[in-house]
Amino acid sequence: MAGAEIERLIQMLSRLPGLGPRSARRAALYLIKRQEGALAPLADALAVVADKVKPCHICGNYDTVDPCPICTDPQRDDSVICVVEDVDDLWALERTKAFRGRYHVLGGVLSALDGVGPEDLLIPRLLDRAVDPAVQEVILALPATVEGQTTAHYLTDRLKAAETPDHQIRVSGLAHGVPVGGELDYLDDGTLSQALRARRPV
Amino acid sequence: MAGAEIERLIQMLSRLPGLGPRSARRAALYLIKRQEGALAPLADALAVVADKVKPCHICGNYDTVDPCPICTDPQRDDSVICVVEDVDDLWALERTKAFRGRYHVLGGVLSALDGVGPEDLLIPRLLDRAVDPAVQEVILALPATVEGQTTAHYLTDRLKAAETPDHQIRVSGLAHGVPVGGELDYLDDGTLSQALRARRPV
Repeated sequence: MAGAEIERLIQMLSRLPGLGPRSARRAALYLIKRQEGALAPLADALAVVADKVKPCHICGNYDTVDPCPICTDPQRDDSVICVVEDVDDLWALERTKAFRGRYHVLGGVLSALDGVGPEDLLIPRLLDRAVDPAVQEVILALPATVEGQTTAHYLTDRLKAAETPDHQIRVSGLAHGVPVGGELDYLDDGTLSQALRARRPV
Repeated sequence: MAGAEIERLIQMLSRLPGLGPRSARRAALYLIKRQEGALAPLADALAVVADKVKPCHICGNYDTVDPCPICTDPQRDDSVICVVEDVDDLWALERTKAFRGRYHVLGGVLSALDGVGPEDLLIPRLLDRAVDPAVQEVILALPATVEGQTTAHYLTDRLKAAETPDHQIRVSGLAHGVPVGGELDYLDDGTLSQALRARRPV
């Protein structure tokens, strides 16, 4: 057993996703042994984030400015909103550099099991944004899980209900298929049959 | 990409052992979303450790007091010193509650590959402690790796050379054998043959 102060640090670290009790102990010792090189910079980074980072009131992204740089970037396309479950999905899409529209972070997906209903997600704010005549398409980049697809169906219904004769909203989802670099015989049957059905001319 | 402040936090977290770049991003988002519940307590725990925790000048353990509580505990046995590679090994041995002597943390093991020589480890301090007439046994609880066993051999030689006709030092190592709860057919041949050679009457 380490002292109470070290045990407290281990306990706080072990709550992080990806760190179990054993790796939290290793991480704590790593930090204790490197007070200048690792512990102080981590403490500084945490203080800066605690002090400055807040959610963007438009899209739900986290940044030091509100609205966030993605919402205010004049180079980005106002006609497409990409809906994601959480901010890490937004980060993942931004890393691809394949999308230059705006985002909307739901803050979760509908889940009867976890008691997450429409009122727990940033759905009204999405509908407010989608009825803007500038918006032509909403991409539902939600997880390919039961909860993700339930949420996608629910959002599709709500978006379609918000259409007017003068303003149609195209609703789309991510393509399913063979991951780039993926072997066919490691793929599950559902993905493989979807990839076959959605085959494209080469 | 997240903002520079968030990227800095992700970078600091990804240096922790056990957290890769992907899990560091998840951990950062977890902290950002739980400023009161997770980020602030972690920052506090880090500040307390940075402020108070230091190495014990006798054994190399980390604690808020120097000498550490293990070195000053009058209930513990002065006649046995258990030598470990690092503080996490000391923590592991303390969790077993099977050892009530003193410790000595080497701060590493000899490694030609990593350029770790005897002068990089707390070996002189160990020899100073071992020549105390009260010390009857030194347990070398070092890893069962080439480096660990090289270090054990080196320390055995040094400890034997420090003996006098009036003061013999018993040097011992941990037993090898079948882990408790372990299946025989998952064990490597070396461990299994050592367990067989060191068999005990039941």
